Amino acid sequence: MRWPYIANVIGILLVFLGLSMVFTLVCSLIYADTSLVALIESMGVTIAAGLLLYFGSRRPTIDYISPREGIAIVALGWTVMGLFGALPFYLGDGLPHFTDAFFESVSGFTTTGSSVLTNIEGLSRSLLFWRSFIQWLGGMGIIVLSLAILPFLGVGGMQLFKAEVPSPVPDKLTPRLSDSAKILWYLYALISVAEVIFLLAGGMDFYDALCHTLTTMPTGGFSTKNTSMAHYDSAYLDYVVVVFMVIAGINFSLHYQMLRGRTLIFWRDSECRFFLGLCLVLSLVIAFNIHGTVYDSFGKAFQYASFQVVSIVTTTGFATADYETWPGLSQAIIFICMFIGASAGSTGGGMKCARVMVCFKYCYRELFVLVHPRSIVQVKLNAAVVPDSVLRSIMGFLALYMGLFVFSSLCLAALGMDMVSSFGAVAACIGNIGPGFGTVGPVDNFAHISAAGKWILIWCMLLGRLEIYTVIVLFVPEFWKK
Amino acid sequence: MRWPYIANVIGILLVFLGLSMVFTLVCSLIYADTSLVALIESMGVTIAAGLLLYFGSRRPTIDYISPREGIAIVALGWTVMGLFGALPFYLGDGLPHFTDAFFESVSGFTTTGSSVLTNIEGLSRSLLFWRSFIQWLGGMGIIVLSLAILPFLGVGGMQLFKAEVPSPVPDKLTPRLSDSAKILWYLYALISVAEVIFLLAGGMDFYDALCHTLTTMPTGGFSTKNTSMAHYDSAYLDYVVVVFMVIAGINFSLHYQMLRGRTLIFWRDSECRFFLGLCLVLSLVIAFNIHGTVYDSFGKAFQYASFQVVSIVTTTGFATADYETWPGLSQAIIFICMFIGASAGSTGGGMKCARVMVCFKYCYRELFVLVHPRSIVQVKLNAAVVPDSVLRSIMGFLALYMGLFVFSSLCLAALGMDMVSSFGAVAACIGNIGPGFGTVGPVDNFAHISAAGKWILIWCMLLGRLEIYTVIVLFVPEFWKK
Ligand SMILES: [K+]
Ligand SMILES: [K+]
Repeated sequence: MRWPYIANVIGILLVFLGLSMVFTLVCSLIYADTSLVALIESMGVTIAAGLLLYFGSRRPTIDYISPREGIAIVALGWTVMGLFGALPFYLGDGLPHFTDAFFESVSGFTTTGSSVLTNIEGLSRSLLFWRSFIQWLGGMGIIVLSLAILPFLGVGGMQLFKAEVPSPVPDKLTPRLSDSAKILWYLYALISVAEVIFLLAGGMDFYDALCHTLTTMPTGGFSTKNTSMAHYDSAYLDYVVVVFMVIAGINFSLHYQMLRGRTLIFWRDSECRFFLGLCLVLSLVIAFNIHGTVYDSFGKAFQYASFQVVSIVTTTGFATADYETWPGLSQAIIFICMFIGASAGSTGGGMKCARVMVCFKYCYRELFVLVHPRSIVQVKLNAAVVPDSVLRSIMGFLALYMGLFVFSSLCLAALGMDMVSSFGAVAACIGNIGPGFGTVGPVDNFAHISAAGKWILIWCMLLGRLEIYTVIVLFVPEFWKK
Repeated sequence: MRWPYIANVIGILLVFLGLSMVFTLVCSLIYADTSLVALIESMGVTIAAGLLLYFGSRRPTIDYISPREGIAIVALGWTVMGLFGALPFYLGDGLPHFTDAFFESVSGFTTTGSSVLTNIEGLSRSLLFWRSFIQWLGGMGIIVLSLAILPFLGVGGMQLFKAEVPSPVPDKLTPRLSDSAKILWYLYALISVAEVIFLLAGGMDFYDALCHTLTTMPTGGFSTKNTSMAHYDSAYLDYVVVVFMVIAGINFSLHYQMLRGRTLIFWRDSECRFFLGLCLVLSLVIAFNIHGTVYDSFGKAFQYASFQVVSIVTTTGFATADYETWPGLSQAIIFICMFIGASAGSTGGGMKCARVMVCFKYCYRELFVLVHPRSIVQVKLNAAVVPDSVLRSIMGFLALYMGLFVFSSLCLAALGMDMVSSFGAVAACIGNIGPGFGTVGPVDNFAHISAAGKWILIWCMLLGRLEIYTVIVLFVPEFWKK
């Protein structure tokens, strides 16, 4: 483990983070709010820390990064971003307790969207912008991490990629890191611009349209309104956000391929088909379930059902209705969706559709082998055989996900939380969704949780966002041995 | 699939079931209750059906049973036992609706212990005895099935054994089926006699001592009292039952080995160590959790904590307290325990400790491989390497268990049940536990569930008891092809 190199990379990231605060400064100047000084301080501290790390360390001459170093950079990188991203909230009187500020910041960078703010609209406009902006940065990080950086790392890097997205690799975008990153970010920005335009067309003002776009594309879910998207009470805006949540929940390399002319790619890709089918079928099921019992017209029922389903399946977490008041079936579906999550290679969290599909096929194979003991059956995804090592990695991922969900829920319950809220809060945080169940439902917030509980949830958000392995491997003694 | 052979075996089983009803007749005569006619009718119908099947079919001359036939016998056998075991309840005015009688009977034979009786003590003494007795028969079936019959089936039989207990095989008891069965049943009966004596010593009358023993040993959990074991309010009786629940939750081949002089076997066997450790640690954690909040003295807290923990971990389902009134941590632990279950080769249900242990080791291996990509690590249990095919089978089992838990819960919720009760009822039935959460907690019953809901839960009980694969493979088209 070459720490100087790791420090060097973290330093560069911090300088960029500090520089990106300039948008927030502009926002503060435009709205002449009270956060200007705090923002300048935060920017100064972040850039200074970044420069200190950068010049205090030395960039190794060999251009090779080991899997372990890669893992350390990823895990440490996200934590440090969370730490410095918390400064504006902490210094700007938004969240005077550091735990709260750190929670909100990690919830941003991991695109979780769970909030400790009891009055979101009470925050200054520049801090609200920062809150949305860090989700957008987190989304950028996730796309590039899972689709470009990790595969680029080569042999060891493929191992790392396995840690991040242990699922069949989509066609590599371009062989070189910088090119891939540029293309992906370009796409991400392009779709973001489109969403702003569509939201403006629905009558949203520019500030809100921008902020909501910055949290839709990374499937983040922070809103500038206390009542989230329910504030606007507009079917047009709801459906615009639904469409863009779906787009954000699709593997970004498919978007790239579609722009390159492969127009049927969304249908041809089996994970995408599964994801789109899941959104549609569950929206219909819940619409029928809440039609009559909660909403009189089927149109309204479908509007609210599809919004909530897509919001949870894509792990965005926006809300237009309180699903905790819906019938048992709808609640159970929403709870299960928190685990499934969006597509691999998207900005969404959860277990990912590809892994769930592979798990289905894995089980089917076991049943087939029971009937035909001597047959050899291979698990395929998109007509390609999934190698045994990848299968093992996926099954291990799913088991670790469930195991850590249980472990973290028990820790939260040990702090005095009730059972449903413990399970709900951890499911929401480890899946990077945002709202959960019980006392942390879509119309609640995470403010009432004890400081220790917030640290457990911060741990869950990082676990989920960095695909479990990258974080949990740090606790394996072998990781630290020569 | 040679159906005549299958019918022949089922016929033999039915004749034995009919003959075993003679104990119930004796019970009815002793207490001079009103069920005598119904019992004679049930006995007649069962024996007649058995003889009809036996003589209507022909025993094949070749002494070989294919894996598929074995699976069909197991799945069909348990269902048919449930069907004819329901007759006394149905004809004896105990449960006038056939769905209810069938539910209660399957709950007996699968040693689940979920009841649709709203007033247990209102049933005649002979029917209450039958209710306990079928659990004892179910337990006999499970031990012999998992430890003697399945391994005895040879090559194809090992595949079947894999379906029943896809876990490292404990040392085979004796090479021949009949010997193994005799030894196991002897042991089972011997321990049962011991429990009756200990219960009598605590002041329980003979009828109750016998009935509770008949439901402790198979980890069944049916009680003759409305308030289950809480009725006796005796620390001595509670601890006696705790000890015998623990014994019933241990692999019966270990009991055999201990009687053969290997006195440290419980400690040497890693699954048994895990199981005993789990019971002890969770009892202590819950005792501390409910001490002060629910019970003033730690002694009382430990008494109720250990009883409830052991009752759920061993999947017995007796109750001395309503864990739904306990703090969140205790409830969450109890809920998780419903999935873990007892040891493989015991009469307990759930996923089984051995599978959970193997899953832990599987995950650890994946983390190890991430750090050392080129290393080959083998998963071991009791110092023996677990072959890859067994590992796959176990991971598939766990995934199927969770998947079917989710699927069945959604079906139950679709019938209008609330989320927590749906998850609780299915967890309780698929794990063969008995009481669940929500409206089916330890002081509630399953009577209020709709007929369709009861059929879903009957399906869950059979799924869990026959180790998932044996039932679910019937739904794979390949199973029915030549
Ligand atoms: K989110
Ligand atoms: K039971």
